[in-house]
Amino acid sequence: MKARVYVTLKPGVLDPQGRAIQHALENLGFGGVEGVRQGKFIELELADGTPRESIDEMCRKLLANTVIENFKVEVA
Amino acid sequence: MKARVYVTLKPGVLDPQGRAIQHALENLGFGGVEGVRQGKFIELELADGTPRESIDEMCRKLLANTVIENFKVEVA
Repeated sequence: MKARVYVTLKPGVLDPQGRAIQHALENLGFGGVEGVRQGKFIELELADGTPRESIDEMCRKLLANTVIENFKVEVA
Repeated sequence: MKARVYVTLKPGVLDPQGRAIQHALENLGFGGVEGVRQGKFIELELADGTPRESIDEMCRKLLANTVIENFKVEVA
């Protein structure tokens, strides 16, 4: 089975990487870019039947820093 | 308007970061982790009416390295 994990910075947490992307897009001539936030996208290939709680625990223990990041899990 | 961009390594491209995550999960005691691929997830806040082609161009010019990465755009 496959699981997709999306890790995003919590609102209010500064995102210097996102700012850098925003400035670079403006410098390339793209107008109307009002904000950019960069996160992580992790695809896990797991043994069939891995429980959802187990995936959430992977996120809390390793994949996301829950102090500053949110995560979302999609099981496909 | 919001656009979400998912950037993933093309199949066959080595992903040392994904391997490191896989080993770390195993060391934490999570079984059955058969593979991990790490990608990027970028949220763009754009002026309303920004055409889809313009977002694709941002990906090709800056957000993704199309030699080794694929990208997917979702407009919300």
